[in-house]
Amino acid sequence: MPTIVVEVMPKAELLDPAGKAVAGALHRLGHTRISDVRLGKRFELHVDGDVDAELLADVEKVASDMLANTVIEDVVTVEVQGSSVAGETH
Amino acid sequence: MPTIVVEVMPKAELLDPAGKAVAGALHRLGHTRISDVRLGKRFELHVDGDVDAELLADVEKVASDMLANTVIEDVVTVEVQGSSVAGETH
Repeated sequence: MPTIVVEVMPKAELLDPAGKAVAGALHRLGHTRISDVRLGKRFELHVDGDVDAELLADVEKVASDMLANTVIEDVVTVEVQGSSVAGETH
Repeated sequence: MPTIVVEVMPKAELLDPAGKAVAGALHRLGHTRISDVRLGKRFELHVDGDVDAELLADVEKVASDMLANTVIEDVVTVEVQGSSVAGETH
């Protein structure tokens, strides 16, 4: 069954307190080479049947309209795993 | 500045209520070809200087010990972006 992976990260210009908390904890534990941490989301959408260009366009719209809050987040990846996109030439 | 991306997903045998809620919302809105959704986390660790094998091993340990709760979650990816690993031959 193909899976579409959508990855969403907080925008670079925003603070991301959850990531800052992780970075602070890692520093206190001695992992000082990690200078900053940002924490985002990874959605796996499981699809019935093949992924075609229409479904992929639909998922890209869903990603930016619903899975990400584009006021504070960016969609960084929409990627098909486990099958190629039907109708693509590469 | 190189970035190490760590991706964490809920274990396949667990229910993942947040993912189920997203899947339910997508179904109600007519996106019925998406049969299931799972919601995980994506950490971006920003690193000072080059990523060497020692740091990568350290981050892999941090990922499974601290970033993921391995009782309910799996680390699916630990991947360097923006530089190659110093000392690797490929």
